[in-house]
Amino acid sequence: APVRVNGFVCKNPMKVNADDFFKAAALDKPRVTNKVGSNVTLINVMQIAGLNTLGISIARIDYAPLGQNPPHTHPRATEILTVLEGTLYVGFVTSNQPAPNRNKFLSKVLNKGDVFVFPVGLIHFQFNPNPHKPAVAIAALSSQNPGAITIANAVFGSDPQISDDVLAKAFQVEKNTIDWLQAQFWENNHN
Amino acid sequence: APVRVNGFVCKNPMKVNADDFFKAAALDKPRVTNKVGSNVTLINVMQIAGLNTLGISIARIDYAPLGQNPPHTHPRATEILTVLEGTLYVGFVTSNQPAPNRNKFLSKVLNKGDVFVFPVGLIHFQFNPNPHKPAVAIAALSSQNPGAITIANAVFGSDPQISDDVLAKAFQVEKNTIDWLQAQFWENNHN
Amino acid sequence: APVRVNGFVCKNPMKVNADDFFKAAALDKPRVTNKVGSNVTLINVMQIAGLNTLGISIARIDYAPLGQNPPHTHPRATEILTVLEGTLYVGFVTSNQPAPNRNKFLSKVLNKGDVFVFPVGLIHFQFNPNPHKPAVAIAALSSQNPGAITIANAVFGSDPQISDDVLAKAFQVEKNTIDWLQAQFWENNHN
Amino acid sequence: APVRVNGFVCKNPMKVNADDFFKAAALDKPRVTNKVGSNVTLINVMQIAGLNTLGISIARIDYAPLGQNPPHTHPRATEILTVLEGTLYVGFVTSNQPAPNRNKFLSKVLNKGDVFVFPVGLIHFQFNPNPHKPAVAIAALSSQNPGAITIANAVFGSDPQISDDVLAKAFQVEKNTIDWLQAQFWENNHN
Amino acid sequence: APVRVNGFVCKNPMKVNADDFFKAAALDKPRVTNKVGSNVTLINVMQIAGLNTLGISIARIDYAPLGQNPPHTHPRATEILTVLEGTLYVGFVTSNQPAPNRNKFLSKVLNKGDVFVFPVGLIHFQFNPNPHKPAVAIAALSSQNPGAITIANAVFGSDPQISDDVLAKAFQVEKNTIDWLQAQFWENNHN
Amino acid sequence: APVRVNGFVCKNPMKVNADDFFKAAALDKPRVTNKVGSNVTLINVMQIAGLNTLGISIARIDYAPLGQNPPHTHPRATEILTVLEGTLYVGFVTSNQPAPNRNKFLSKVLNKGDVFVFPVGLIHFQFNPNPHKPAVAIAALSSQNPGAITIANAVFGSDPQISDDVLAKAFQVEKNTIDWLQAQFWENNHN
Repeated sequence: APVRVNGFVCKNPMKVNADDFFKAAALDKPRVTNKVGSNVTLINVMQIAGLNTLGISIARIDYAPLGQNPPHTHPRATEILTVLEGTLYVGFVTSNQPAPNRNKFLSKVLNKGDVFVFPVGLIHFQFNPNPHKPAVAIAALSSQNPGAITIANAVFGSDPQISDDVLAKAFQVEKNTIDWLQAQFWENNHN
Repeated sequence: APVRVNGFVCKNPMKVNADDFFKAAALDKPRVTNKVGSNVTLINVMQIAGLNTLGISIARIDYAPLGQNPPHTHPRATEILTVLEGTLYVGFVTSNQPAPNRNKFLSKVLNKGDVFVFPVGLIHFQFNPNPHKPAVAIAALSSQNPGAITIANAVFGSDPQISDDVLAKAFQVEKNTIDWLQAQFWENNHN
Repeated sequence: APVRVNGFVCKNPMKVNADDFFKAAALDKPRVTNKVGSNVTLINVMQIAGLNTLGISIARIDYAPLGQNPPHTHPRATEILTVLEGTLYVGFVTSNQPAPNRNKFLSKVLNKGDVFVFPVGLIHFQFNPNPHKPAVAIAALSSQNPGAITIANAVFGSDPQISDDVLAKAFQVEKNTIDWLQAQFWENNHN
Repeated sequence: APVRVNGFVCKNPMKVNADDFFKAAALDKPRVTNKVGSNVTLINVMQIAGLNTLGISIARIDYAPLGQNPPHTHPRATEILTVLEGTLYVGFVTSNQPAPNRNKFLSKVLNKGDVFVFPVGLIHFQFNPNPHKPAVAIAALSSQNPGAITIANAVFGSDPQISDDVLAKAFQVEKNTIDWLQAQFWENNHN
Repeated sequence: APVRVNGFVCKNPMKVNADDFFKAAALDKPRVTNKVGSNVTLINVMQIAGLNTLGISIARIDYAPLGQNPPHTHPRATEILTVLEGTLYVGFVTSNQPAPNRNKFLSKVLNKGDVFVFPVGLIHFQFNPNPHKPAVAIAALSSQNPGAITIANAVFGSDPQISDDVLAKAFQVEKNTIDWLQAQFWENNHN
Repeated sequence: APVRVNGFVCKNPMKVNADDFFKAAALDKPRVTNKVGSNVTLINVMQIAGLNTLGISIARIDYAPLGQNPPHTHPRATEILTVLEGTLYVGFVTSNQPAPNRNKFLSKVLNKGDVFVFPVGLIHFQFNPNPHKPAVAIAALSSQNPGAITIANAVFGSDPQISDDVLAKAFQVEKNTIDWLQAQFWENNHN
């Protein structure tokens, strides 16, 4: 049986080489964007086995014109992002702290070379406000396996569905609105 | 200036006494439930200064008949819960793992004495399905300051509001649905 | 060979379900108390496999009238406790800090709903001072595998026995007192 | 106000020098032993400010003939020890694991140059079995502030005293035995 | 006195805004390279106060033709790097593991979009082998304050100098070679 | 397949005994010193399996007259050292902090019983300045597997060799000086 650490196979040290710390042509090419107009290409421990236990990963994010990386959280990582091309409107919402800091929305328009931080576990998004040009960002995350939870997909697109009684009251809408939401196609947007 | 650790005041050790590790009558009494039919009474480092650095907190949750502790996350804690009275329908949704585990909803009906775990950072809720009787649970969290993010409140009740362009696309609804949602009163439900 | 993390089997993610985060009827029923008048029902990673790596566990403790959960430590966890029924006299002793804080005993009488904290690694106990009524508490611990060391059992009931020469000097008693102590039956009180 | 980290003053980096990482003549000289025949000279963050956050400390332990470093725990550190002079009988007791590992006593006679490990939080001791010669050991601990709890002192010599009702039942002795124990002088043995 | 965490000032939560998580125009512009042909622009907790405790930072590295980011270590971080422009020859050396893995040099030529990992604490470098074109990379580090130790500068350019007796023997050269090395100007190359 | 934690075999708890926490005659005897006049005898998790996960190790270091433990780092540990015999000139170099703290060399002459700390990841060394007498130290490290990187060996003695173009520029010397250095025999000095 192979040796595993954190559940991932740990290669025989005698056979480790530079390829175990390397991924070719991973982040240079624009990729087709999804239904909400983005595409996250994450290089984590699944792509580079040598990242195991080392606490970091990196991603390229492509944004179509008016595309977004929709509101989501990373349960195990803080994210730091810089814009390579285009413009991004980004933000995160604070937790249920005492008012007036409760659910405070902190946002910023980022241009090329700007840097922004999304603290661990908070709901955040990036949106390309430009109707004509795509945008590109590089983001880094403080885990070799940060996880991602797209809020709308997890709430309305789970399998099986969450009870519409629960969601109707939580979101203060009619049950048929919830049913309509749950009937949509919730495309995965963090591969 | 007082000594602080983690930003919290650290009492002079010469003056520390049992009261610094104690909170009286904290979790015994039913409390009035909020608009969604619950009330979370959390005893964390803000209530017991001696918890600082010790990595745990405890809560009582009251549920009205058909009340819920709506979908939320704790950015810094796993939660373990046991039912003291009544019945709860509880669940959490996994993250964007590879299919078929993507956004899988794991749920259970809990009776008195049952125990359930909500892993760190995942969206979870509890709902009292009984239309006549209240329910009560004790929950413990693996942080002295776990934080809480109520999904609906953070997404639709943030201050200021998140752009309705962004939310309309993320939730696959019309902008006026988002506007209507943002116009609701989003009562805090984790004091 | 199964995948293991922390030495515990890690279930195939494709087969994970709600039962892996659940324990039925674990903490609702009073249990027969032991020789010192208590019974600790701990739900940790051995009972709920999904707790692995998540850093928390929960327990119900039953106390007979005049029963106690005798002086013990948890080598890997802080404990937070709340009283469900009855009254408890609880306390812990600080470590060998500079006087006057050396081996300071901090104690409190707890009633229903009170909360108390026992910091990681310190010797603590709970005692039910009521000669007629039982007591019940819920305690949470900041580890999925906190461990427990009952002081009297570990010192006088170890297998094999610690040299009576050592213990006689450490406890400032005659060797025959130690021999008498070691001859007692030291019932396990943390299952 | 000075900058503090972990509650300890953090010197202005512009003024830091080699003395902040140094303690002169700390561990070379035999020291007078206490009532149980030992003397622990611990160099931790209180003696060397530069140790703050660095997770290690070192000690010299002197043992009189037939002297002991009595049963104790370190709530925040594992200990590794090597004998410089003489012979030591050492051991630790495991926690309340399932039988037959419950409260198992693991012991060894150590000679000069032998190395032994005492895992974090477990009750352990060292005893010099030689009636004529002293012994000396160097021990290292995995914390800059490991803490120490001498079992007998914390249980019977606390201030104020623990109720003799509680201790009599826990230790399976008469209350007057407890009273006699509590009336002894419990000299501190970890300065 | 301001509240500090980790030694850094922690802004009053009531006054926190998006600028505390933001750095404008930080990483877009080529910068003049130093004597060895590189320039590291690191955005860490000194540039973005909101990064404190969050465990990540990001950098842009410019390389002149034939320029290098010379052999160095980060004492508190793993690094993950992707090439934005040009070509880089990169590598790291393993530690004193048992042969044949002792001081093994793992290297790779990286092109645009390739990703490479430098594990925490290991000596690594990047070199632009192209005599005509510059190169640019984005690197992320698993600490908000990773630190950097340029090997040549720390060994031969320290203040005061390390004894040439020590260095001559360590590097197996004559003392006058060491003296000559120590007389050079060791320009800082990690601002 | 055996259970492994951190990649190391975890013995069946039923078969664990004191020998799993013990190493006989490990640190008492002077050992033959290497080419640079030292010999590090490290007792880590490879020598004592019971150290796994416990975060500490211990070493004896022998120094010939004028011998040295050459400049090196530990990527995963702080070191604390005390002198048992003789005299040592020791020091470490700070990282690329803002001037005037950049690459500051902090050094001290240590005599018997003195204690010194080498913070995690920083380049440090010990040198025996006495031309006639050996020296001996005990060092402890804050990891069960601290790792060691001898600077000269890793830079000039790696397998395969680092490009002499890179090293010539980094060390500000001619390529033939690098070639000469790389042609030396770089004996391992941390077994």
